[in-house]
Amino acid sequence: MSLIKNSILNIKPYMAGKPIEETKRELGLKEVIKLASNENPLGASPKALQAIRKNVSGINRYPDSQGFYLKRKIAQYLKVQSSNVVLGNGSDEIIDIIIKTFVEEDENIITADTTFLEYEIISQVNNRKVITVPLRYFKYDLEGIKRKINKKTKLIFISNPNNPTGTYVTKFELEDFMVDLPRDLILVLDEAYDTFIDVDDFPKSLQYLSGQNKNIIVLKTFSKAYGLAGLRIGYAIASSDFASYMERVRQPFNVNLLAQVAATAALDDRDFLRKTRKVILQGRNYLYEALNKLGIAYVPSVANFILIDVGKDSVGLFRDMLKYGVIVRDMKQYGLKNFIRVTIGTRKENERFIKVLKKVL
Amino acid sequence: MSLIKNSILNIKPYMAGKPIEETKRELGLKEVIKLASNENPLGASPKALQAIRKNVSGINRYPDSQGFYLKRKIAQYLKVQSSNVVLGNGSDEIIDIIIKTFVEEDENIITADTTFLEYEIISQVNNRKVITVPLRYFKYDLEGIKRKINKKTKLIFISNPNNPTGTYVTKFELEDFMVDLPRDLILVLDEAYDTFIDVDDFPKSLQYLSGQNKNIIVLKTFSKAYGLAGLRIGYAIASSDFASYMERVRQPFNVNLLAQVAATAALDDRDFLRKTRKVILQGRNYLYEALNKLGIAYVPSVANFILIDVGKDSVGLFRDMLKYGVIVRDMKQYGLKNFIRVTIGTRKENERFIKVLKKVL
Repeated sequence: MSLIKNSILNIKPYMAGKPIEETKRELGLKEVIKLASNENPLGASPKALQAIRKNVSGINRYPDSQGFYLKRKIAQYLKVQSSNVVLGNGSDEIIDIIIKTFVEEDENIITADTTFLEYEIISQVNNRKVITVPLRYFKYDLEGIKRKINKKTKLIFISNPNNPTGTYVTKFELEDFMVDLPRDLILVLDEAYDTFIDVDDFPKSLQYLSGQNKNIIVLKTFSKAYGLAGLRIGYAIASSDFASYMERVRQPFNVNLLAQVAATAALDDRDFLRKTRKVILQGRNYLYEALNKLGIAYVPSVANFILIDVGKDSVGLFRDMLKYGVIVRDMKQYGLKNFIRVTIGTRKENERFIKVLKKVL
Repeated sequence: MSLIKNSILNIKPYMAGKPIEETKRELGLKEVIKLASNENPLGASPKALQAIRKNVSGINRYPDSQGFYLKRKIAQYLKVQSSNVVLGNGSDEIIDIIIKTFVEEDENIITADTTFLEYEIISQVNNRKVITVPLRYFKYDLEGIKRKINKKTKLIFISNPNNPTGTYVTKFELEDFMVDLPRDLILVLDEAYDTFIDVDDFPKSLQYLSGQNKNIIVLKTFSKAYGLAGLRIGYAIASSDFASYMERVRQPFNVNLLAQVAATAALDDRDFLRKTRKVILQGRNYLYEALNKLGIAYVPSVANFILIDVGKDSVGLFRDMLKYGVIVRDMKQYGLKNFIRVTIGTRKENERFIKVLKKVL
């Protein structure tokens, strides 16, 4: 007799990008670079680091359960109210909060079949049914999703830009999709990678919040462009009504004290954000050119990573690259067994990646 | 039409202890002491602070999703295996993980009616039925709990020592209770305050894990004696079978990077722990004597806080003390409207508390 809940028995755990420390430990390597988790290769904002150092001696106190200063700063920055902001221990936790707040036991959730894996895992953990719709040409198939909506559909998760493909849903596609959505359905737009967008037709999603379709929740994170992945801060922007119920579900001390002060300071560090964006956009072009020269196919990306078709089993390739101290992400868990996802790094890291890729291919 | 899940509509949010910063901001006070959240008045372990400073520049990287070093250190310290340890973003999150892992939708959870509020809140958030059993003489009524067990009971939460009363279940009481518990039931012993125990008959709960009754999960935290409340680290010790399923439910990056390094270092700082324990035990005696002199009733405590019968509405008393810059916790939310809970502070803080208490009573 098992005491484990039935729905938990079949969950496949999320496989994280391999940490630098672990790679060094296991392979006895000294110089390892990690291009596996879409982290900021420049580190964290210096202003954030300064804020942490200033507040570190106060960590015997619980964090502010209301996140007063951080919410106020986010609200100023995005031109919303503090009451529209819900803070999470990373966007992962926000996903959990959303499901718990809105999705009844017999309701379902729709997302793509090749997208951020946590939408499906966290739905399963909460014992909610997930309907996945295949991508079309590596893009979210909004028409396909619309066809799958039924009376029990409560949530749709759209990763925009999409992880791991780097593609995006345009303003026109999204608005067309929203026109006749059922009114009892909530659309979650996860914009973790929005800083790296360099196209004109990306949706300005926050505008929809004040429009007719208020059932939109936008997710943002400090883990990517702001370089604070290690501290865990994501957030949702939603109507103040939605946000007030999400606040009841949110655990009071979910966002740690150093995360709150670091994120508040990071939002003021526009220089660091500009520098990060520049490095990523330049790195993207460098990698495109290098891959073109090698005749290797990839999916053009508006994010800080590139999905690359390596034409052979990517788990083996991942292991081969590891031996040379380069950590990338094989896409087996995402169902793309001949693909790797590489995070755009510094110029030096990108060059090393290309050099090692040539060696192992 | 509301899109909010029915079970969420009636949840009363947890009211956190009032933060120092907020009190200063709202009341224009300069010197504020907080004795409201059972935090360590000495700060955090110096070794933990050092570990944070050493690792702060690496926060652009995700935390180790396996918590390798911290789990290994905890395992060494408690003489268990790493596979017995599950790390959480505070014990709050561990409670959520336990409910998600074990409690089916039609199963119920039993706890006391005056205990750590999150057992009930997190159960409600997960839409699980909670049966609460009144305390007897401010103690967990294990016989009363046993009478409430039915076929659908899956979990029992026991806060030991109990927050907010400071009382404890003895070894003999607990073992008597466990003798004929149904075998398909899991007992969670939350020992957040175990460092401050100064009695001989407190249960050595980890021993039960290797005994006949393996359906025991013990919770511990770094938020109290270790002074790391701001960073959020709690953990569960369970059979490796239970732990492996809890690991599937746990989000991969739930424990932040600085929390992991700080907690790992803090476990090695036995000096700090000894010093903390000494200050709390001395402070407890000081407060007992001072309250005795004033003829104020209290519940004897084995924890770092004391439940005090102030003989009048405690919300008003809380507000009165706040004006003098002393933050305590009124017990209205716990259903004890004439009680406050005061955290044992430094000698200076305890003296100030008594002085202000005299003034406002």
